[in-house]
Amino acid sequence: MSNETLLDRLRSELGADAVVTDVDVMATYSRDQMPLAPAGTPLAVVLPEDVDGVRATVRACAAARVPVVPRGAGSGLSGGANAVDGCVVLVTTKLDEIVEIDPDNRLAVVQPGVVNQDLRDAVAKHGLFYPPDPSSYDWCTIGGNLATNAGGLCCVKYGVTSDFVLGLEVVLADGSLLRTGRRTVKGVAGYDLTKLFVGSEGTLGVITEATLALRPLPQAPATLVAAFPSAPAAGVAVSRIVREGLVPSLMEIMDTATVDAVSNYLRTDLGTERGTLLLCQSDTGGERASAELSAVERICSEAGAEMTYHTDDLAEGDLLMRARRVTLLALESMGSCMTDDVCVPRTRIADLITGCERIAEEVGLTVAVVGHAGDGNMHPTVVYDASSEGEFERAKRAFDAILELGLSLGGTVTGEHGVGKFKQEWLAREIGPVGLDVHRRIKRALDPQNLFNPGSMFSL
Amino acid sequence: MSNETLLDRLRSELGADAVVTDVDVMATYSRDQMPLAPAGTPLAVVLPEDVDGVRATVRACAAARVPVVPRGAGSGLSGGANAVDGCVVLVTTKLDEIVEIDPDNRLAVVQPGVVNQDLRDAVAKHGLFYPPDPSSYDWCTIGGNLATNAGGLCCVKYGVTSDFVLGLEVVLADGSLLRTGRRTVKGVAGYDLTKLFVGSEGTLGVITEATLALRPLPQAPATLVAAFPSAPAAGVAVSRIVREGLVPSLMEIMDTATVDAVSNYLRTDLGTERGTLLLCQSDTGGERASAELSAVERICSEAGAEMTYHTDDLAEGDLLMRARRVTLLALESMGSCMTDDVCVPRTRIADLITGCERIAEEVGLTVAVVGHAGDGNMHPTVVYDASSEGEFERAKRAFDAILELGLSLGGTVTGEHGVGKFKQEWLAREIGPVGLDVHRRIKRALDPQNLFNPGSMFSL
Repeated sequence: MSNETLLDRLRSELGADAVVTDVDVMATYSRDQMPLAPAGTPLAVVLPEDVDGVRATVRACAAARVPVVPRGAGSGLSGGANAVDGCVVLVTTKLDEIVEIDPDNRLAVVQPGVVNQDLRDAVAKHGLFYPPDPSSYDWCTIGGNLATNAGGLCCVKYGVTSDFVLGLEVVLADGSLLRTGRRTVKGVAGYDLTKLFVGSEGTLGVITEATLALRPLPQAPATLVAAFPSAPAAGVAVSRIVREGLVPSLMEIMDTATVDAVSNYLRTDLGTERGTLLLCQSDTGGERASAELSAVERICSEAGAEMTYHTDDLAEGDLLMRARRVTLLALESMGSCMTDDVCVPRTRIADLITGCERIAEEVGLTVAVVGHAGDGNMHPTVVYDASSEGEFERAKRAFDAILELGLSLGGTVTGEHGVGKFKQEWLAREIGPVGLDVHRRIKRALDPQNLFNPGSMFSL
Repeated sequence: MSNETLLDRLRSELGADAVVTDVDVMATYSRDQMPLAPAGTPLAVVLPEDVDGVRATVRACAAARVPVVPRGAGSGLSGGANAVDGCVVLVTTKLDEIVEIDPDNRLAVVQPGVVNQDLRDAVAKHGLFYPPDPSSYDWCTIGGNLATNAGGLCCVKYGVTSDFVLGLEVVLADGSLLRTGRRTVKGVAGYDLTKLFVGSEGTLGVITEATLALRPLPQAPATLVAAFPSAPAAGVAVSRIVREGLVPSLMEIMDTATVDAVSNYLRTDLGTERGTLLLCQSDTGGERASAELSAVERICSEAGAEMTYHTDDLAEGDLLMRARRVTLLALESMGSCMTDDVCVPRTRIADLITGCERIAEEVGLTVAVVGHAGDGNMHPTVVYDASSEGEFERAKRAFDAILELGLSLGGTVTGEHGVGKFKQEWLAREIGPVGLDVHRRIKRALDPQNLFNPGSMFSL
């Protein structure tokens, strides 16, 4: 089938408006938020409005042997949704219906184009809560969250996206429709195909519906901040908080470089000059939250915190959290940023931070570490001058050295952003030849033509 | 390779003691605890002592084209570990080392032959807790728990086995060694192979090591019992408990037939004559547990409970729990038992119980429903006279009607026991032709020779 024939078929099956070939419009659908990943030029961008449109698109592309790159809102940070040359970008944002909210079974059935925040708002009206909260929650879609197994600040207490997926509807490479999982909270009938598709980054199929577990709406958060003289002291506190079984609803760490950047940006004193900040929240409400944060406070003090403070006042808590929220803005005000995503065992967080200090010194650039201390998922960010090729090279060297460091600490090369079109070689290093071979076997079994997102995550 | 050559090779590589061909001894390794599932006669039973022994066994069997049936302690309830004719039963009980306990990262690394209770006891010494608690916890092995994704009473609060698996080491069909997952609590590098192998019932590989997440040891449980005049009233209470976000550490339901059987067996009054019992525990300790159970008690009363009682006295709680614990003994004192395993949405528990009453009437046999109300996983048990062929047929008809009912209520044909060599047709019905085709593709991709547990779960 020629490209023109394919486009004609798509237009006739989905309607002309659903098939975009305008170069400028296509460009806005060809990249996600990771500037370092390669992106190609698509043949077309297709925006089906329902599952039949998705199936028609997949069948037409399979017949024409044109690759399909599934895409949500494009908020990804791995190039996973980036176009490859000559592909059809299949955008799921128009499948944006919340099909059902079942409060008594605490679940929702949604289409992939539903924006994370819209789901959160809709279920909140029933006193329910959808925890996964990637930082792009106000514009990313559930489909992208599922494809990347998105995390967020909630993970320390609530887990990641896959922990909330009961079942999926997926369009496979031959256009057939697979239903995985179920509406019950337990079930062991067959392989766990649901979890195989979650996090598969659009390489195995196109998710067209998901059944998601919900939780009761938590209480408004109480917030604690603790300032430590050093990363190791903060690391000791984190280990002990985990060890004692305290489960804050948020536990973020900011290293000295981050604290400096944010202090300058906000022109304010964050309670420490050359120290490390730990921010914790409890969403259990009232006396219980107060007791939880008091226990955290005690541990922080015993671990050497110079300053601790906690409040159940929402506005004040928000002010304390502001330091964390503006981190990327503060760093971007200093130059271009390469944000890494490594996850290490929680006892190695301090080693990662001190390792990043060493790397920063070696390359002569700022490396600011901010991260989800509760689960060891750290986002060291290298700041560099994009107009200097030398700085870019050094930044890239630091970025890679951080991944190397993460692996050497028993960690993973991606805690929540994914592999996409950017970390394929790192995935291969982390999982080894047998692991890679198993990935390829599964990919070939489900997508023998290599239709979906070819070259992403790994090459066949 | 002839069978004799294979046996010689196994003896030479693993030692003669590791290769059992005595017919009587082999018989003890040829069945699990599900009497209704078929079992064949193995060529040999092999008990390797380490991962190299497992790899040598798999390689030798692959070369001889002799099927391998992996097996733990044999406590399964689906025939999943039952021998097929001419196979090698690969028993993992001698790989029984707890390799590591890492309290600060709250994880343990174990071999598959470790008994569930031994792991629980070992981590308890560090103040830690491994929640999955199938009823055979004092003799089942972690390997079997992983293969079947075992559940238990803990699930309502803590989830199932797969929720505690961070990573695996697996011997594949070609004898190569796959490592999945990681030691970190988060990570999205590649497909979730860990969750693919958990619950795959020995059809994809032999698990030789697992990295398991642990939790802090909970407090001693406080216990509540509530007696309702009818299953629907108890069902309303369960829905409301879930709806309000209360998370007891245990929530079990016993229907009228169960209450009758247990009352007669224990020769005691369980607080209700023709009613439904709900048993709940809280393991949060002290005032919090008391507050939780008081909230549950209020909901039960509002839903029409005739009697509620709760206690934080351990011995008294144990006495209350005794009714639940002796259920199977009580039913077995009345005849042979066929125990089903369906999981329905929590709002449909009462419908399942009343449906079972109807089925019992139709076949003229006792059907007693006991189950994990907190997650909708019900175990209706049909009591029959095994010496009567007519009763067996009727019991089997009731058993199947219950599965049918479970599916019609939006449930699954197995909540925690698995498919094994017993529910293959039911699996096919539940997941449909596309789902089955995907299972077959994955199986062929990873085990092209159909070496592992052929015919279990589904046929190629």
